[in-house]
Amino acid sequence: MAQQQYFLGIDGGGTKCKARLENANGELLAEGLAGPSNPVQNAKLAFQSIVEAASQAVKAANIPGLTEHKLSVCLGLAGVNVPAYRTIAESWPLPFRQVKVTTDLHVACVGAHGSPEGAIVITGTGSSSFASVNNVHTAIGGHGFPLGDKGSGAWLGWRGLSYTLEALDKLRPSTPMVNAMCRALGTDNTREIVGEALAFTSRDFASLAPVVVNHVYKHDPIATTIMEDGKTYLEAVILRLNNLGAKRISIIGGLSSHWTGWFTPHIQQLLSPALNTPEMGAVVLARQAFKES
Amino acid sequence: MAQQQYFLGIDGGGTKCKARLENANGELLAEGLAGPSNPVQNAKLAFQSIVEAASQAVKAANIPGLTEHKLSVCLGLAGVNVPAYRTIAESWPLPFRQVKVTTDLHVACVGAHGSPEGAIVITGTGSSSFASVNNVHTAIGGHGFPLGDKGSGAWLGWRGLSYTLEALDKLRPSTPMVNAMCRALGTDNTREIVGEALAFTSRDFASLAPVVVNHVYKHDPIATTIMEDGKTYLEAVILRLNNLGAKRISIIGGLSSHWTGWFTPHIQQLLSPALNTPEMGAVVLARQAFKES
Repeated sequence: MAQQQYFLGIDGGGTKCKARLENANGELLAEGLAGPSNPVQNAKLAFQSIVEAASQAVKAANIPGLTEHKLSVCLGLAGVNVPAYRTIAESWPLPFRQVKVTTDLHVACVGAHGSPEGAIVITGTGSSSFASVNNVHTAIGGHGFPLGDKGSGAWLGWRGLSYTLEALDKLRPSTPMVNAMCRALGTDNTREIVGEALAFTSRDFASLAPVVVNHVYKHDPIATTIMEDGKTYLEAVILRLNNLGAKRISIIGGLSSHWTGWFTPHIQQLLSPALNTPEMGAVVLARQAFKES
Repeated sequence: MAQQQYFLGIDGGGTKCKARLENANGELLAEGLAGPSNPVQNAKLAFQSIVEAASQAVKAANIPGLTEHKLSVCLGLAGVNVPAYRTIAESWPLPFRQVKVTTDLHVACVGAHGSPEGAIVITGTGSSSFASVNNVHTAIGGHGFPLGDKGSGAWLGWRGLSYTLEALDKLRPSTPMVNAMCRALGTDNTREIVGEALAFTSRDFASLAPVVVNHVYKHDPIATTIMEDGKTYLEAVILRLNNLGAKRISIIGGLSSHWTGWFTPHIQQLLSPALNTPEMGAVVLARQAFKES
């Protein structure tokens, strides 16, 4: 009789690493949660977070004889669409039986649709999108901040802060959003703001996104202009995913609910709710890659 | 009889460090040129570049007994408007007799107008502006890329590249500028472009500015839109400098001639040519601070 197989799905992003452990029958055994696991930002930390999340899941499953060495794993990782970072991830000395590396977008898409076919838009700290149509994969956007990632939290916070500095320079009219941005930063002195912002990461900019989003609901003209710019971009992405022939399109991530309400009805009708989580998509792909009949 | 005094002016920016050595009568003795000297980007390198440029000038002057220890110096440095970086520059163990630290903007303004009063807009790799009116100094813009520095070379190249990626994603129409940008990068593969651009500095983005500027002259619609956005910002800056009461306003830096021709006639009429270089302005400030009657 064949040995029992165990499948681990990893959803690895810039903020956290989620692990989901299932047996061959598709039963959930345990989950794990660790820190940042984006190899572009910090490859060593990403490796450690993956090992930590897997170790947590194995311990929590509490199955005699089960170790990481018995796991068939799919890693869905941000940034591995860039060949250099895929190479890094594929060369990690991970303690698993077998490993498939793919993008966080791919596992999220499989999770969202419970199927290999479909498309997703992710908008959280960053933004990006992905379509799988007739088994052809197309990634759109992403590109990293500040080059791309329009409609993401980092982009919203950055646009809000950039406008705030222009208003403090008296080049543009001030609005309540500008005052709220200064309160969030603890100062309205441009030198102090710039001194602080020189070291800002995407996550720091994203932490200011709520200031912009809250003022959209208060009809602040600047917050509204920023939100309209992001909407124009994300709607173009959704139309492109639809034109590619994606069967189902979902928008996921921390900011998705804000955007959904903002889209025009025609775009809203193109969207379907995500069915499952990205780590569930990763388990599906691990099973698909490694299942022994 | 008082000992002969020597004044050294330093113009320190992100690309190079220029030194100008004069005697007490205002006669040019020698010049020096060294590498990057922006303490925000690399404080240790900035210190070394300043020492190197000064040493070159002293050697070239070839005056018996003249050493760096006899120099009265004014450093005009990018970034020292931010208090933390001014503190760093003021604590350097420089080999000079006496040192005044001020911004690159301040020395450029004094140089441009041959007077403590006036205003300047700098647009090169970065952009920023400065006014001195009734001895009150006001800095506008700057803020660093990507938060500010609109209308700079880094901003132009970044906007052009960001649009190019959206066109390659088929979210926007392609134009000849997009093709030229891909030729400049050596690829039209978005993964390769993004992989390369993840490590881009302001100078890397600025190296792509000529692609945008050249296509403005060819009436490329995207290059024109980008240039119009930059123009709107820089014109707002110039109007603000004028409203502050600046007597003379000059625009300087590597991209200034492109912008000047693009401005509306009303704005062009507010501009006057720069009279002298920033390092000449730094010598003026050194003499003003340290001249013994």
